[in-house]
Amino acid sequence: MTDLPPDPFFSGPGIDRADLLRADEASRQALALAPGARELVWRDGVPSVGEDGRLEWRPVEAPDLFLGLDGEAPRFSALQEEFADAWAAFGQMAVLDPADAPLFAAALSLTRWHARHRFCANSGHLSEVVRGGWSRRCPECGAEHFPRVDPVVIMLAEHQGKLLLGRQPHYPPGRYSALAGFVEVGENLEAAVARELLEEAGIRVRNVRYLASQPWPFPSSLMVGCHAEAEDSALTIDTTELEAARWFTRDEIAAGLKGGEDAPFQAPPRAAIARTLLERWLAA
Amino acid sequence: MTDLPPDPFFSGPGIDRADLLRADEASRQALALAPGARELVWRDGVPSVGEDGRLEWRPVEAPDLFLGLDGEAPRFSALQEEFADAWAAFGQMAVLDPADAPLFAAALSLTRWHARHRFCANSGHLSEVVRGGWSRRCPECGAEHFPRVDPVVIMLAEHQGKLLLGRQPHYPPGRYSALAGFVEVGENLEAAVARELLEEAGIRVRNVRYLASQPWPFPSSLMVGCHAEAEDSALTIDTTELEAARWFTRDEIAAGLKGGEDAPFQAPPRAAIARTLLERWLAA
Repeated sequence: MTDLPPDPFFSGPGIDRADLLRADEASRQALALAPGARELVWRDGVPSVGEDGRLEWRPVEAPDLFLGLDGEAPRFSALQEEFADAWAAFGQMAVLDPADAPLFAAALSLTRWHARHRFCANSGHLSEVVRGGWSRRCPECGAEHFPRVDPVVIMLAEHQGKLLLGRQPHYPPGRYSALAGFVEVGENLEAAVARELLEEAGIRVRNVRYLASQPWPFPSSLMVGCHAEAEDSALTIDTTELEAARWFTRDEIAAGLKGGEDAPFQAPPRAAIARTLLERWLAA
Repeated sequence: MTDLPPDPFFSGPGIDRADLLRADEASRQALALAPGARELVWRDGVPSVGEDGRLEWRPVEAPDLFLGLDGEAPRFSALQEEFADAWAAFGQMAVLDPADAPLFAAALSLTRWHARHRFCANSGHLSEVVRGGWSRRCPECGAEHFPRVDPVVIMLAEHQGKLLLGRQPHYPPGRYSALAGFVEVGENLEAAVARELLEEAGIRVRNVRYLASQPWPFPSSLMVGCHAEAEDSALTIDTTELEAARWFTRDEIAAGLKGGEDAPFQAPPRAAIARTLLERWLAA
């Protein structure tokens, strides 16, 4: 008997975001002074992960962003200026306890959004942190700006029992993963899946189905995993996006996930929803 | 025999977005001069809908934004400054042919995004339209900014065969609809559904399932419709978000969708995914 594949990494309830406290400046200031209040420790451009796999905390010094309540304990982060990309953060992500992963993702996306959105896009003036860090407001034009969450479709296209995987030029050697792309204005998830597979691989698909989703904090994607049936297997690769793409048999997927020196490809790491999608496909 | 409920409005393939042509300035300029090239007509803050329900077009004057290819025919829009909200656009949406709805949504979201994001959020300088209107680039700091697509979960919570619907203060009299809220950084779709239902209605849910999705161009939401099983029926309404919420029986949902003077509530209009979700729930 096999264990069921886990939910995608970075998913789960996380801590209580205590939405109603965000707008309440006086309550938040009191929370920052509470005995159990803690501030996130940062290391190498991401929230710091201790040897036990849990996020590291220290007494509150700069409660710029109110992350929520962990039970009764208020959690804050200081604003940050330097951030790691996903490859640089791989070491800390590999040991991160899944229970702390949603908070890791929220803190990283939120903090990075502030660093890159200090000015009002509507009027060009320096904007101010409001709502405990969950938005910025322009003191000149009054516009309020909320953190970005950018939906991305990532999909397993299947044809006659084989799955289409591709590799981008910046992947580690041997790595193949599911094709993906940003959802654009004026399209829904199903249309985005069909468009991306046609653009990147030249295949037409039908019966697009939702599978699972995952926040991905580099910087602020919402990965939406889908399955699609390809109408045929002939590929036309967009080489501006992909270095290569090909169809993998069930045995190859299984061997890739198992890993090892003779694996036919290097599967995506645990933190990537692409791995979850492959594990679930294999287990189904 | 009943017709199957339609797909959500604003969904569907739309026209060929011709992604590869966006970055190719010379080709785009040639396309704007092609005999079949047309520019979108705007009226009252939205793309203009003719008496036949189709979008209206005119010869190209200001090809600021390249919308794509309708067959061989290039489609453009000028940048706009004034926009209608969803209520004001209701008349044109009510007669819009579903085949043109994805392009209506794309043009409205894209054009509005430019109007509200003229400045670089990273450095505060005026940014420039690039990629045929599909992004903006800052000439000072080099940052590139892409149009926002903001995922929103909208959900049918069910308990013992009844559905939870609520009304916001700005709704027309008698209107009830599905509860909804923006997905935040660090959470996936399922976590957002659970959080929003707990925040707005005080209910805990399990078995969140994806149903359907829809772009909603006021200004740039991606509505993601879900179903969730409520653990019990006791409600605690967040009155900062909702004026009222209650459970509706299957008969009440059917009567609301049918409409008429003695309907127990006024159902959402055709263009809203909430109506599609209710129709599908009833038909299942």
